[in-house]
Amino acid sequence: MARVWVNSASLAFVYNNFLRNSAKNHPYLKNGVRLMSTQATFKASDVEIEFCRTDQLKPKPAVKDLVFGVTFTDHMLEVEWTEADGWGKPKISPFHYFSIHPGAKVLHYATELFEGMKAYRTCNGQICMFRPDMNMKRMIRTAKRASLPTFDQDELIVLMKKLISIDQEWVPHAESSSLYIRPAIIAHEEVLKVEQPRKALLFVILSPTGPYFTSGYNPVSLLADPKYVRAWPGGCGDAKMGSNYAPTLAVQKEAMKLGHAQVLWLYGPDHRITEVGAMNIMILLDKGNGERELVTPPLDGLILPGVTRASLLELARSWREFEVNERDITMAELLEHSRNNRILEMFGCGTAAVVCPVGSISYNGQTIRIPTMEHKQPLTTRFYDAITDIQYGRTPHPWSVPIE
Amino acid sequence: MARVWVNSASLAFVYNNFLRNSAKNHPYLKNGVRLMSTQATFKASDVEIEFCRTDQLKPKPAVKDLVFGVTFTDHMLEVEWTEADGWGKPKISPFHYFSIHPGAKVLHYATELFEGMKAYRTCNGQICMFRPDMNMKRMIRTAKRASLPTFDQDELIVLMKKLISIDQEWVPHAESSSLYIRPAIIAHEEVLKVEQPRKALLFVILSPTGPYFTSGYNPVSLLADPKYVRAWPGGCGDAKMGSNYAPTLAVQKEAMKLGHAQVLWLYGPDHRITEVGAMNIMILLDKGNGERELVTPPLDGLILPGVTRASLLELARSWREFEVNERDITMAELLEHSRNNRILEMFGCGTAAVVCPVGSISYNGQTIRIPTMEHKQPLTTRFYDAITDIQYGRTPHPWSVPIE
Repeated sequence: MARVWVNSASLAFVYNNFLRNSAKNHPYLKNGVRLMSTQATFKASDVEIEFCRTDQLKPKPAVKDLVFGVTFTDHMLEVEWTEADGWGKPKISPFHYFSIHPGAKVLHYATELFEGMKAYRTCNGQICMFRPDMNMKRMIRTAKRASLPTFDQDELIVLMKKLISIDQEWVPHAESSSLYIRPAIIAHEEVLKVEQPRKALLFVILSPTGPYFTSGYNPVSLLADPKYVRAWPGGCGDAKMGSNYAPTLAVQKEAMKLGHAQVLWLYGPDHRITEVGAMNIMILLDKGNGERELVTPPLDGLILPGVTRASLLELARSWREFEVNERDITMAELLEHSRNNRILEMFGCGTAAVVCPVGSISYNGQTIRIPTMEHKQPLTTRFYDAITDIQYGRTPHPWSVPIE
Repeated sequence: MARVWVNSASLAFVYNNFLRNSAKNHPYLKNGVRLMSTQATFKASDVEIEFCRTDQLKPKPAVKDLVFGVTFTDHMLEVEWTEADGWGKPKISPFHYFSIHPGAKVLHYATELFEGMKAYRTCNGQICMFRPDMNMKRMIRTAKRASLPTFDQDELIVLMKKLISIDQEWVPHAESSSLYIRPAIIAHEEVLKVEQPRKALLFVILSPTGPYFTSGYNPVSLLADPKYVRAWPGGCGDAKMGSNYAPTLAVQKEAMKLGHAQVLWLYGPDHRITEVGAMNIMILLDKGNGERELVTPPLDGLILPGVTRASLLELARSWREFEVNERDITMAELLEHSRNNRILEMFGCGTAAVVCPVGSISYNGQTIRIPTMEHKQPLTTRFYDAITDIQYGRTPHPWSVPIE
């Protein structure tokens, strides 16, 4: 929606409507007249660009030294939002620190959301994003749940492409590496009352990245402790809000103290499996009749609707080689399958790691061994190859979206 | 714990221990030698103070214009923490914005906690804090749950007293007004990986404040919608982490759209009452036999252990006039009491508002009317008076702690 300067003909209607709908001294009102409507979205075509001077450009680390989320590129995108005026003009400028008031809501009440996506340098020399529409759809859904402002997702995709294009030399010239894209919205109004945000900032930063897990592609061990719960019905487990992550850190610390790499999150009295670390979880079962079943928990409100999760499900269904089910799976069922040697593979999946094979689970004092990578051609590896073939352009696919 | 420079005698032990416990390139290690142990707490006696120049002092708003959490005083307290070195030296300096990296964990993963306390100008001219030890105890407990650094709570109390003393002209010369104290810890390390914080900042800001609810001391109407849940067993509902607040904003918005002031949070299939807005909840019942019962939900992990809650319970128990029970109370029980006209009063309680009387609850399409303020001498008012008598020094009490 473009910024509309209300002419006198439509003013009466707008003003009466305003009187019905809004409180006294509402910021839309200046001297008793509603001056402008709010910007429901920003527009990519309005972008203002301030390039780094060449002496401001940062050195690029060697691909082998890339660690997830540590190095950032030369530019960033920002768009300011206020309740009164809606979205301002997008701005791409040299990467810089924010100046944030100590009373800003984001520092006290976690008024924040984010997304995680990647751009890849494909084998034919293009730079492509992976299914950006999926992340944007989720970002809009999260914004609604977080009471943060929404926008036209296509406009942000165009802006991200522009930003990546400006910083394209930061997209690593190597496979297994990529450019991690981090869009986020923070509400940074300097008022301590717990209430709806009236000011927010959408920003996008870019980080060239190697593999997420520095330990490499080795099966990890998980701690499954029913005493900690990641998400619950009526909460926000299916939205990508910062508030889902802070509570996991102490649990992750405990898992690591006990020698485990990640937490397997359980829910409910029957210890349903929900997620692993900050990833979705998938399990490949031997059905005993020569058939196999791929299981992942359903999107019942507790589960983040992962883009990698959705992509693996679509791929697996298109192969028609085994059953693919989004269904509940409990620890009791998993233990039963383990006793019968019917767990073939288990792995986390997400944007950062693509897939993360699981080797064992510690649960109620027992260890469940899982032979994920011990088969001749693990599904885990096949999924990894299929997704990365698309991401790096070896398999042409509509999921891979060129930035220009 | 003082900063210890390890001498060569103890070096072998420390170094071997280090090799066993920590990863390669751990920041404690400089050139293969562990240089120093970490600071387990900061010390108030180390504080460095930089005063405002007189031309930097801000104008103080009139008491009648004070709005909760909008105005901040002239100085603030900061203490930096790193995993490698522990706590640094406390610093009181002119109030200023933070410079925060866009990749800082606090902006993405809600690595943050806070406390809320108040200082009062008493009728005998002293400035006093209200039960600071209770807030500090909770802050330490929250820090553990949030995987943020802990410290010696007495040191922070001394530092807060110092800060308040420096900004003492900001403590309003009026009752019903006070100086709100906001200690907080944020983890602001600029690494996007979801992992334990390695850098954090503790800070304290002060805000002179009038009444929390601008609508005054009128009974409010609540929306009780079981479809939204604030906290869950295995979560963090009993810790004062920012992550508990962000998910409530959209629900609060919905409540306000429907004409309600606050949300009454329910939990479980039996719709147990847990909290109201960001406050604890209390209900005074007529037992039908001439006796009364004050009920508040128990500290079962879902409930924030409020300082006002604890104080009202202690006061009520000392009065020995009615039963005081920390027990579960469901909406079914409340409806039953409502049908029998046995709900006498209901109110939220917390630091910001002290008490907040409830006038009605909208639940499953019905409205439960509650005559909280319609009695001759409401308990709600008596509690308010008793607490504020202590806070403003009219009743001498050990809960009121002078700052000097």
